[in-house]
Amino acid sequence: MKIAIIGIGTIGKGVLELLNKEKENIEKRIGESIEISWICDLKENINDIGDYNFTKDYKKILKDDSVETVIELIGGNTVAFEIAKDTLKNKKNLITANKYLLATKGKEVFKLAKENKVKIFFEGAIAGGTPIASSIYEGVFSGGIKQIRGILNGTSNYILSKMEEGYSYKDALKTAQKEGYAELDSTFDVKGIDTAHKISLLSYLIWDEFIDFEKISIKGIDFITDKDIKIAKTSGKRYKLIGEATKEDEAIKIVVKPVLIDKNDPLYNVNDAYNGIESYGKHLEKTFFSGKGAGALPTATSIIGDLYKIKNSNAWY
Amino acid sequence: MKIAIIGIGTIGKGVLELLNKEKENIEKRIGESIEISWICDLKENINDIGDYNFTKDYKKILKDDSVETVIELIGGNTVAFEIAKDTLKNKKNLITANKYLLATKGKEVFKLAKENKVKIFFEGAIAGGTPIASSIYEGVFSGGIKQIRGILNGTSNYILSKMEEGYSYKDALKTAQKEGYAELDSTFDVKGIDTAHKISLLSYLIWDEFIDFEKISIKGIDFITDKDIKIAKTSGKRYKLIGEATKEDEAIKIVVKPVLIDKNDPLYNVNDAYNGIESYGKHLEKTFFSGKGAGALPTATSIIGDLYKIKNSNAWY
Repeated sequence: MKIAIIGIGTIGKGVLELLNKEKENIEKRIGESIEISWICDLKENINDIGDYNFTKDYKKILKDDSVETVIELIGGNTVAFEIAKDTLKNKKNLITANKYLLATKGKEVFKLAKENKVKIFFEGAIAGGTPIASSIYEGVFSGGIKQIRGILNGTSNYILSKMEEGYSYKDALKTAQKEGYAELDSTFDVKGIDTAHKISLLSYLIWDEFIDFEKISIKGIDFITDKDIKIAKTSGKRYKLIGEATKEDEAIKIVVKPVLIDKNDPLYNVNDAYNGIESYGKHLEKTFFSGKGAGALPTATSIIGDLYKIKNSNAWY
Repeated sequence: MKIAIIGIGTIGKGVLELLNKEKENIEKRIGESIEISWICDLKENINDIGDYNFTKDYKKILKDDSVETVIELIGGNTVAFEIAKDTLKNKKNLITANKYLLATKGKEVFKLAKENKVKIFFEGAIAGGTPIASSIYEGVFSGGIKQIRGILNGTSNYILSKMEEGYSYKDALKTAQKEGYAELDSTFDVKGIDTAHKISLLSYLIWDEFIDFEKISIKGIDFITDKDIKIAKTSGKRYKLIGEATKEDEAIKIVVKPVLIDKNDPLYNVNDAYNGIESYGKHLEKTFFSGKGAGALPTATSIIGDLYKIKNSNAWY
């Protein structure tokens, strides 16, 4: 399988690292060899990634008929949207970890995939190291799911955990950046927007319906003080940034906000850069998933899982 | 898709119930209508399941060319082994929830599926309502998994939870049977054999290798006394029946035994008929899955998920 990677930031480098380190395992499971035909980054020349065919011009990749699958890791919903559309129109499969793009432009992107009879997978977009998207969409979809809620942003969860250890909000954020969990611009993480993108995508995967992003009630963690954290700790609770989607009487409601979580809730022990998701289904009862939600390699494992699906599964639209 | 169900016990009835209750959702997701061409049960005439084409002779089903997929829910590894082999040889896809069969005869069954170019899926065989098999096999396989451990038997976990509430072992077992979690013969559940089947299958899914079942060290919960449970409780711990598979220096080691679990372990809060599985991968770090592990409907959701895969995924061997 000839692939191209567009966007060589933390996650892109993680994918290269994993494809090198686990080459034998990956190719055995997928059932064919993986060849990286192109690496593209729009902003800069990359010189610490090894000997790859590099271009700044993603259109060059789309003209290369031998490339079967494009992995888009640019982020955002402007240039990435153009790349996604062009990739699908050129009848190449698309793997993306871009929740912002899919939560806001998903309808159009999925439609294009369908029209062009190519595949699109995005396990890396929600809860990095946890295969929650396929578990929900392919696994337990018949369980009569009524609600899904979870900690979906590793950066803000890491900050809350560090604040409980005594760090100030500022120092906790700095440490998150140093650990490679937070981007330099962490607005989307701490203001709950990234969580809203992810819970909105999960909601789509369960109920086949996109909620207007503007209708989602969103509150972040940036107003939480050291004092709030201390009071919560004294009462044996923890603040967690929770995204929650509920379907009742045919209406879907999505809310993102910090919630005081008590010890009996499985989300209480989802700390640091981990994510955790609990679903409730009337036939299935409770299901819980947890895994590392930030960092290069856990997300890269999900992207490699999508390569398996490109080869071995049909498309999702 | 025309299917047949062989074996109408608790799980078989659950599959029928779910296919009725969630018909619209299921057919929309799978992408075609599901028609139950045959119901077969070897032992008895079934009269409380509704208006289906019933037979006691499974070979009749295999002669029906219109049947595409057989769901085997007989259990055991004698008659079920014959049915599995005949199904695959007759070029029909096989869905099974039979961990005993696959842990002991998996090599032969998977080989037959491959030879006959048909598909086999078995999500219902491990941790009923949790899509752990596909998460491991398709999702996080590149995470460098070194260890997987978990509570994999709902019945024994339910018994241990009830004993902590003050029930005697005998009464706890009776309640489990009344709730439909335990079969009348619960030997495999309480002696750890069912757990060994499941952890052995998980180990195969991760490392593509079957360990001789005789080489697995197995200890059950049937020697645990009320006093043991009380002492554990006093020290803030819980006994859990744990199946654990570890790969070190190319050697796979599988152990099943009751383990004292402390409060910081995510398995501590996996109680009653729930299952919980934690994996550790060198790239992935920790992943945790939990869901109901016994009872008709949770397992039935996994079997319906396998129907999705029959239509939309390639085979696993």
